[in-house]
Amino acid sequence: MKRKIVIVGGVAGGAAAAARLRRLNEEDDIIMFERGEYVSFANCGLPYYIGEKIQARGKLLVQTVEGLNKRFKLDVRNFSEVISIDRANKKVRVRNVKDGTEYEESYDYLILAPGAKPIVPDIAGIREAANVFTLRNIADTDAITAFIKTTNPNRAVIIGGGAIGLEMAENLRVRGLDVTLIEASEQVMGPLDPEMAQMVHEHMVGHGVELILKDGVSAIEEEGHMVKLQSGRNVEADLIILAIGVQPESTLAKDAGLKLGVRGSIVVNKQLQTSDPNIYAVGDAIEVTDKINGQPTVVTLAWGASRQGRLVADHINGLPVHFGGLQGTAIAKVFDLTVAMTGNNEKTLRKYGMPYRTVHVHPASHASYYPNAAPIALKLLFHPENGTILGAQAVALDGADKRIDVIATAMKGGLTVYDLPDLELAYAPPFSSSKDPVNIAGYAASNIMDGLVETVQWYEIDELVKAGALLIDVRDPKEREAGYIEGSVNIPLNDLRERIDELPKDREIYVSCQVGLRGYLAARLLSGYGIKAKNVDGGYKTYYYGIASLHNCSK
Amino acid sequence: MKRKIVIVGGVAGGAAAAARLRRLNEEDDIIMFERGEYVSFANCGLPYYIGEKIQARGKLLVQTVEGLNKRFKLDVRNFSEVISIDRANKKVRVRNVKDGTEYEESYDYLILAPGAKPIVPDIAGIREAANVFTLRNIADTDAITAFIKTTNPNRAVIIGGGAIGLEMAENLRVRGLDVTLIEASEQVMGPLDPEMAQMVHEHMVGHGVELILKDGVSAIEEEGHMVKLQSGRNVEADLIILAIGVQPESTLAKDAGLKLGVRGSIVVNKQLQTSDPNIYAVGDAIEVTDKINGQPTVVTLAWGASRQGRLVADHINGLPVHFGGLQGTAIAKVFDLTVAMTGNNEKTLRKYGMPYRTVHVHPASHASYYPNAAPIALKLLFHPENGTILGAQAVALDGADKRIDVIATAMKGGLTVYDLPDLELAYAPPFSSSKDPVNIAGYAASNIMDGLVETVQWYEIDELVKAGALLIDVRDPKEREAGYIEGSVNIPLNDLRERIDELPKDREIYVSCQVGLRGYLAARLLSGYGIKAKNVDGGYKTYYYGIASLHNCSK
Repeated sequence: MKRKIVIVGGVAGGAAAAARLRRLNEEDDIIMFERGEYVSFANCGLPYYIGEKIQARGKLLVQTVEGLNKRFKLDVRNFSEVISIDRANKKVRVRNVKDGTEYEESYDYLILAPGAKPIVPDIAGIREAANVFTLRNIADTDAITAFIKTTNPNRAVIIGGGAIGLEMAENLRVRGLDVTLIEASEQVMGPLDPEMAQMVHEHMVGHGVELILKDGVSAIEEEGHMVKLQSGRNVEADLIILAIGVQPESTLAKDAGLKLGVRGSIVVNKQLQTSDPNIYAVGDAIEVTDKINGQPTVVTLAWGASRQGRLVADHINGLPVHFGGLQGTAIAKVFDLTVAMTGNNEKTLRKYGMPYRTVHVHPASHASYYPNAAPIALKLLFHPENGTILGAQAVALDGADKRIDVIATAMKGGLTVYDLPDLELAYAPPFSSSKDPVNIAGYAASNIMDGLVETVQWYEIDELVKAGALLIDVRDPKEREAGYIEGSVNIPLNDLRERIDELPKDREIYVSCQVGLRGYLAARLLSGYGIKAKNVDGGYKTYYYGIASLHNCSK
Repeated sequence: MKRKIVIVGGVAGGAAAAARLRRLNEEDDIIMFERGEYVSFANCGLPYYIGEKIQARGKLLVQTVEGLNKRFKLDVRNFSEVISIDRANKKVRVRNVKDGTEYEESYDYLILAPGAKPIVPDIAGIREAANVFTLRNIADTDAITAFIKTTNPNRAVIIGGGAIGLEMAENLRVRGLDVTLIEASEQVMGPLDPEMAQMVHEHMVGHGVELILKDGVSAIEEEGHMVKLQSGRNVEADLIILAIGVQPESTLAKDAGLKLGVRGSIVVNKQLQTSDPNIYAVGDAIEVTDKINGQPTVVTLAWGASRQGRLVADHINGLPVHFGGLQGTAIAKVFDLTVAMTGNNEKTLRKYGMPYRTVHVHPASHASYYPNAAPIALKLLFHPENGTILGAQAVALDGADKRIDVIATAMKGGLTVYDLPDLELAYAPPFSSSKDPVNIAGYAASNIMDGLVETVQWYEIDELVKAGALLIDVRDPKEREAGYIEGSVNIPLNDLRERIDELPKDREIYVSCQVGLRGYLAARLLSGYGIKAKNVDGGYKTYYYGIASLHNCSK
């Protein structure tokens, strides 16, 4: 039986649905409406085209209207905005955005893939200034590159420190602009915890980005050449990129009476059907379940859109579908740094009152004796009773993507921290170590689970020391020259046994080192002499970035 | 209660055991005997030191005797060979290899970590020639580098195409030597299937290595300057590296009456105890269970040694231990190529009569519009009924390590091919695509499981065409200029619908493209017109390498 399937939106989720629909059924009529000119374009590549890392504009156009029509026998109509849905009669009303004409099209199934739109806050002067841009599509990209070409701006201000903001900071720096990034919260990259984000802050500053945190824009003046901040500070600008976030494009769904959820997103069931079972929705516009905390959320990333588009096509064609939600795996390149994460961060777990434990490790990306090994700052969050992996974050010059993908896969497989040491990962010196960083994180977490060591976090130790706790820094004296935790006493690990009598045996003490490993060895050693010692998790390195994040310093 | 634990062998597994033993118990006496001078050295780094990629010899010495003793309160005795075990009295006999003196040492627990030794075949002239080297330890490395320095050889012959042979080929080429690699079987890197190995062959030849396959060495003459092959061919040599494989160092265990297994390896139980429960064994010398096919095997890789060493320490200290075997994850860098694998290959599955299906995919390492994306040749093997993942192989300039690690983790988590599309992996253009190569392999396998497409393998299609089957090549005509499957008829995918009447509807036909994707689309399309079509798995690219492997050609 031939069906008529109408898709609203021709980029990630919509295009994925259309292609799969055709692969599953040669007969169906498949009409895909796209408001803009382009379908299936490389939206994640736009910042890199602006930075000229991607040089040919044509590379952004993954598929053309003609190409899709020809290959998949689709009826793709660009410049066509669906402006209303008549659910009772199963029809949509379409406006040709070029000539304003309107017409109706009927459907058996309707798939909404409208995406999300950049949030434009109500700031004085923001709409008047001709140099303020958001970045969502090819038209935006063309506008920004044309603006750069014609006005040759020197100073860029980026408002918002999410992935788009960071990618634009890098790409505009690459094009030689002075870049100031303004972020209202204490950190960029919200999915990171602060001590991890601080590494990104310092890296950005090292690449010449002026970073202004905890400050918001109050007004844009002088025809966009002056950004006034809530703190009273003024920042000059020739070009302003507004990247404070996106919101689901759910007006169409809302007007049709479909159920909406968090942040105005479209509510769907596990089969991605909206409150009208003949209408599906996918991508940035829908509400999904956070797989870790079970809460409804919105994830505006390409992986989910692509996956959901395909699953909708499967469901329409009678295949079993169960979309269980998202775990929020994400990644960004920030200059030379890779920033990757999966699952929940500490902030989120705390917000929802979920019990968790943390380990920070800093192993090398590959064998340290092989050239170009770089430390990976890897944070693992897990359930204190059953060892379930709740989330992970990695920041590194190299190898962060691999470790987060491995942990994301382990989470999907229901593995616990006890299983991570048992992951048989590929080792040769250019790629890893015989204990991979993921193995090491698993060992560190297992040691905590097994009660072999107790730890304190970077945000706890200062207060403990201030209250009189004894903290032994087991690094070598010369390592302390680069910094140490105030109040710590230095006894190098290799001297600890012979100086054991210097330590009190009647009270709990604390130990720290550079990255946490020697502190762990020291804590185990001390336990052999009846001394209970807690290790500063992740060592001075984690402590340093954590404390720096509190000061929002960027030294 | 203080125990006395004696360890035989101070490199990977032995050193890992010693360190963990101390971390778990401060009191135990821990004696580690090492026959050579060095303990815990970077054995996987040796080829790269010879190639001067690792420049400081000191970098190979991860730990020193003194460093280990100090940090872990060990009694490490180098130049000390354990020559016999008196199990009845729980004593070992030790020979000081410097002065030949012998003494006994008692133990409560004995850990055997003797490793494996290079196989030196009984070839005429091999022991007489002064320019024949094996590579296992620092002494071997020093000997090779000294030989190169003093004799300045021009022509190196490497006998054996395993990981060490390939790494030596690369590193000697880097040092400017002419390199000939001789391998007795049809391919290098035995864990790869032939069509995958052929990519390595061509890459090596492209880097100036002369590759001689299916030929063995019959004699070494002219004081090592002439290698005579079984084919009658002669190869000149200034330097010969013998790398045909290793065998477990199990003489000590055998003489002590411990049970031996395949290839003379030491048999252990799930707690890594030998047939004498007070004697453990770890590393290259032991028999392990292949997790995929359940057969006993020997895996001489560092990951297992490190893991097993730690587990033995755990078991001695009363922690629960269950070592379930190895899945054989392995990786090698071969010039610019990464070659990685996990689980069983097709050859092994066939050997054990295990049912399996195969998919070959060739997706890009990251978004193709972002610079330096490189295709990953990814082969996935899975169970035809339940979708269990049986193995995977990846060959690529970039990103092969990540995908094999993800699949290895999925296997550990018991995921099936149906779960692979659902892996939420980290995507931004520099790192992956919105459908990661692992997702894509999962989709391809799921499509087969679901009966959406049937495939034929590269080694089946020639015979089918010869027997009269119709094969449609759906690539564009210009793609065929670089090669095509003999007998194929060209109908580009985009023309297939309008030329559908040219095709017979009464018999099964075959379709092929470049990498398998368009062939799949064509097969789905044809099924919509009632034509049953089977896709050539992995396309012309896989076919090309497969056929080339049969000819052992290296064009």
